[in-house]
Amino acid sequence: MTRIEAHQLAPTIGDLAGNQDLALAAIRAAAARGAQLVVLPELVLTGYVFASPEEARAVAIPADDARLLEWGAAGQGALVIGGFAELGSDGLLYNSAAVVGPEGVLAVYRKLHLWDREKLVFTPGLDAPPLLDTPHGRIAVMICYDLEFPELTRGVALAGADLIAVPTNWPLVPRPDGEHPPEVLIAMAAARVSHLAIVACDRTGTERGQEWTAGTAVIDENGWVVAGPGLDGVATADLDLTLARNKTLTSLADAFGDRRPEIYARFAPLHQD
Amino acid sequence: MTRIEAHQLAPTIGDLAGNQDLALAAIRAAAARGAQLVVLPELVLTGYVFASPEEARAVAIPADDARLLEWGAAGQGALVIGGFAELGSDGLLYNSAAVVGPEGVLAVYRKLHLWDREKLVFTPGLDAPPLLDTPHGRIAVMICYDLEFPELTRGVALAGADLIAVPTNWPLVPRPDGEHPPEVLIAMAAARVSHLAIVACDRTGTERGQEWTAGTAVIDENGWVVAGPGLDGVATADLDLTLARNKTLTSLADAFGDRRPEIYARFAPLHQD
Repeated sequence: MTRIEAHQLAPTIGDLAGNQDLALAAIRAAAARGAQLVVLPELVLTGYVFASPEEARAVAIPADDARLLEWGAAGQGALVIGGFAELGSDGLLYNSAAVVGPEGVLAVYRKLHLWDREKLVFTPGLDAPPLLDTPHGRIAVMICYDLEFPELTRGVALAGADLIAVPTNWPLVPRPDGEHPPEVLIAMAAARVSHLAIVACDRTGTERGQEWTAGTAVIDENGWVVAGPGLDGVATADLDLTLARNKTLTSLADAFGDRRPEIYARFAPLHQD
Repeated sequence: MTRIEAHQLAPTIGDLAGNQDLALAAIRAAAARGAQLVVLPELVLTGYVFASPEEARAVAIPADDARLLEWGAAGQGALVIGGFAELGSDGLLYNSAAVVGPEGVLAVYRKLHLWDREKLVFTPGLDAPPLLDTPHGRIAVMICYDLEFPELTRGVALAGADLIAVPTNWPLVPRPDGEHPPEVLIAMAAARVSHLAIVACDRTGTERGQEWTAGTAVIDENGWVVAGPGLDGVATADLDLTLARNKTLTSLADAFGDRRPEIYARFAPLHQD
């Protein structure tokens, strides 16, 4: 079993030092409770609603910044995944997520699908999500809007992901009474059809008039939400990530074995513009 | 607007004549209420829980059978989509759905993904789901378990489907209190990420000990269930199917335009065994 904690924080726009304190306090609290995988929101170090690219640039950090290493140290052995505004060595800004262990930054993922006004600030990534082999299982990383592209969630599932960790900032949108936020619903379906776990860590608070969904969810390999944010904003669950490796549904049905790739290949647009 | 009715029936295993009466009564009732698109369950003419391939063969009919033409006549101009056990000209049995209008059978779809023991009775289809251009919009057809393969739902969406009609027989499975049936959840997410409508017509009753979900749902292009089965088993909704053609989410976001096909192409298994 892997103890997972997602910490739904409320970073302050532009306050790199204060947000780092917030992130470190969350990681330390998670580690003290024995968490082995800690997920933080998208852009947790900077906030989200930038007024301009210049404002984002002022708080962007390179992937080898000491702050990220501090996440790893604070985790006391846990794997920490969270978002930051990345200043690339190419001088461009990326909406990125770091995977950090005690030994340092293990992977950096640059968001592939930029939502709305993010396109005015960030450059989209050029690389597929990382797949990290950890003692807990194979972990993929995406950010927010990425989840709404089934090609990507299915892609990492077929590449062997046991869990997708998703730092996110979900702007609040209307939904019918009694329904999950649409992004949670999409994550639940993605988990169920590919029989893998998904941890989405949302943010909370209101930033420059933007309300957030506060929809943090730990979703098991059957697609059900097994933990949402408590009053403290923390979602905690113990999951056996290796359960995701058996795609058998019945003695005569298999979520992957029943695929018909030769048929899907006829839908050329799946892979082409 | 298109008036849609899905009729959640309870066919009797092996009773071709009785089930045809049931189907015709449903179609006539729908037409009398002005329905323009009528969806019936999977295998509505035969029932589902066959004890042997021979039992299925005894009630399988060719795609040009007069019973299907009767659906079209009963519809009084409506398009009728429902399931039947097809005896192919190759002598093989298929779990098929017919699309029938007043002018006759417009398309026959053979289920691509056979669920569980269906594999002992039927041969899987070799053709992608049909996409029919109708006065109401472009309609794709799938059957039951097909919906659980995001490659297929995304594929027909990218090929321009405005609505996916899904005759289904969903065996009842456990779910947490307050949750939709998992198949409905998967359909809702598929509708939302590709911004198209989905009509799933389930069955009801118990057949040879098999309980059914009775999860019939009309889902709009935002992914929300706008109609479920009433006490009479009928789900009715008026939808403007052309709304599915605009994939714009905000002035800077587009469900299709934001795709990254060059990245998805790196996940070779999407299209290969």
